[in-house]
Amino acid sequence: MKIAILGGDGFVGWPTTLHLSAQGHEVHVVDNLSRRWIDTELGVQSLTPMDSIQERCRIWRETTGRAIRFHLLDIAQDYERLKGWLAENRPDAIVHLAEQRAAPYSMKSDRHKVYTVQNNTNGTHNLLAALVETGIDAHLVHLGTMGVYGYSSVGAPIPEGYLDIEIETPNGKKGQEILYPTRPGSVYHMTKSLDQILFQFYAQNDGLRITDLHQGIVWGTHTTETRLHDQLVNRFDYDGDYGTVLNRFLIQAAIDHPLTVHGTGGQTRAFIHIQDSVRCIDLALGDAPKTGDRVRIFNQMTETHRVRDLAELVAKLTGAKVAYLPNPRKEAAENDLVVRNDQFLSLGLDPTTLAEGLLEEVVDVARRYAHRIDRSRVPAVSAWTKELGAKIDRDPEGKALKSAS
Amino acid sequence: MKIAILGGDGFVGWPTTLHLSAQGHEVHVVDNLSRRWIDTELGVQSLTPMDSIQERCRIWRETTGRAIRFHLLDIAQDYERLKGWLAENRPDAIVHLAEQRAAPYSMKSDRHKVYTVQNNTNGTHNLLAALVETGIDAHLVHLGTMGVYGYSSVGAPIPEGYLDIEIETPNGKKGQEILYPTRPGSVYHMTKSLDQILFQFYAQNDGLRITDLHQGIVWGTHTTETRLHDQLVNRFDYDGDYGTVLNRFLIQAAIDHPLTVHGTGGQTRAFIHIQDSVRCIDLALGDAPKTGDRVRIFNQMTETHRVRDLAELVAKLTGAKVAYLPNPRKEAAENDLVVRNDQFLSLGLDPTTLAEGLLEEVVDVARRYAHRIDRSRVPAVSAWTKELGAKIDRDPEGKALKSAS
Repeated sequence: MKIAILGGDGFVGWPTTLHLSAQGHEVHVVDNLSRRWIDTELGVQSLTPMDSIQERCRIWRETTGRAIRFHLLDIAQDYERLKGWLAENRPDAIVHLAEQRAAPYSMKSDRHKVYTVQNNTNGTHNLLAALVETGIDAHLVHLGTMGVYGYSSVGAPIPEGYLDIEIETPNGKKGQEILYPTRPGSVYHMTKSLDQILFQFYAQNDGLRITDLHQGIVWGTHTTETRLHDQLVNRFDYDGDYGTVLNRFLIQAAIDHPLTVHGTGGQTRAFIHIQDSVRCIDLALGDAPKTGDRVRIFNQMTETHRVRDLAELVAKLTGAKVAYLPNPRKEAAENDLVVRNDQFLSLGLDPTTLAEGLLEEVVDVARRYAHRIDRSRVPAVSAWTKELGAKIDRDPEGKALKSAS
Repeated sequence: MKIAILGGDGFVGWPTTLHLSAQGHEVHVVDNLSRRWIDTELGVQSLTPMDSIQERCRIWRETTGRAIRFHLLDIAQDYERLKGWLAENRPDAIVHLAEQRAAPYSMKSDRHKVYTVQNNTNGTHNLLAALVETGIDAHLVHLGTMGVYGYSSVGAPIPEGYLDIEIETPNGKKGQEILYPTRPGSVYHMTKSLDQILFQFYAQNDGLRITDLHQGIVWGTHTTETRLHDQLVNRFDYDGDYGTVLNRFLIQAAIDHPLTVHGTGGQTRAFIHIQDSVRCIDLALGDAPKTGDRVRIFNQMTETHRVRDLAELVAKLTGAKVAYLPNPRKEAAENDLVVRNDQFLSLGLDPTTLAEGLLEEVVDVARRYAHRIDRSRVPAVSAWTKELGAKIDRDPEGKALKSAS
């Protein structure tokens, strides 16, 4: 297949690109390199030394003999170039990862909120409109998030995208299938909730074939293909905006920083290892919906954990201390979470769980590159409201850590 | 109150502006005048001769002694100026009508789809982000549409915004309140469905006080205030993109054009007279939600009718013929529609119904300005898909009219 990977230079994008190239597909990376620009803006860098996308592609070719083509293109800002690119390249499938993906970044300031909505919503809609206009019947696989549902549900297992409800009518109760109701908790999550509406419309009106992957929190860094060469290494974010919770605990442990739990740590979240994330995208590509089908929605996660349990697990593994800090997010202090992932299991996913020793691998990566860590970038400082931000200001890292240890 | 009316130069905006000014409020019109530009783009003009917004404001002052201030500002394109304007003017309430409002225009081409999403979604989100950033606790009244729900429901009365459902949990069924599920049928309607998600998030995260008016199809042209002076006349759209169905029938009748029913005319829609639309906005302003309340959602309509029944009513009134044409929209051929509007009734709305002689008034307006009508702009030509567009091309107006009459 000819596959376009929008956002193929990112944390999930790059290993996905390598994996699909290794499978023999003709892979095109389409990326505006915004994630690298955001590193520059925030004054942080990937823990792992990351080469330019052009250099990465060169190394991949040297290592495997396979070509990956890179196209610099901003799908949110330049609709006409996107349409032209699609018309010229006519991919069979499109993996859409070209959205700003960090909830804390999306809440950092009004500028970041506005950017996240413009980038994610306009980009995704541009893509849908361009597919219709060019008449390209590509299977679109989009990366969404479990987080669209919020975490204050009534305790029912979260199904895969849809919910059957009953509505009172003058002729008795009638069944109706609806999109599982969303309750996004950040501007980032909100844009993924908007995406659902865009997908529903374009599948219904134009018969676009769409799979939406509602992913959990990704952890880990290496995959089979990134391990092939030092310069193929995946990015590893540890800062308070882009670092994901488990990876952050592991890196904090590696540099003797207390593990920063925000609030009570009673938040239950869904997790998936980066290797499984890549496998799931591949599985989804291999099982495309037909024209006229509703949007196919998969929960892309393998296990759920409470944040404080994760912190304790990492503390036990590494000897690190745990620090309880004020929570910059507006969210329920404690929640349960049960998620169904029957579809990927039935497609053959064999989950990589936390129990399988890969935690050690991440700690090894963190130790190897510990000299590259800027400790001042470790705390999470983006607050959901000004009131929550003020609390963080009153509890700077040092003070909070003292009272917690 | 100091009230900002975003989109105050438009079809609903202008009479709302006059009405609120007449009530003694300090009214500011904020508009980018895009609707006038779209007239230019489409090569159509309001049936009624419409002065510039500056001239309209001058006449209003001359007629009533009241000032309306006009501010040229694009809320979708210029976030920083919007924020600056809000910080400087600090309105007590904001009426947000600054969205592209025609479904056919939103489906005209890919460019129009992209424009509608950018204009509506970015504009509304910019406004919400700017309110949070400036800390302005204004009551936001937004004009949405009944059309977000689609028209293929199970026949239950459409409640006002929310639905109580039951979800199976391991501990038995539990109740949950959700936004009434949407199923938008055009890009325009889709943006109003996106707005709901934006509002839900900002009310929940930041305590913004928001009322969303889910309006039916507006008909009529005059209101108490626009009648005060010829140059205060409201705009009247008759073209296939911006003309609303009942107004189009009335104008077609006035120029001896067959009444153009698309499809079987079995579509049932909700209607409201422009005078009631203005009254409803006023009523909503007077009943603001409190900080922390969920978004208040009103169904802003007064009656429902099947499109073919309306055509027959106008035909009977005027002697016009009815022409059944191919439907350029992708929608159910026939649907029932029952809508609850208890909230506005309880706030004192006394509906102006079709029965009250105002149909004649619209026919009078149409006859008076019949010389300004470009007959070539009367047919609806924007198609929902290329396949539907091809049918319209094969059935040009003349042919279809002959076979139907």
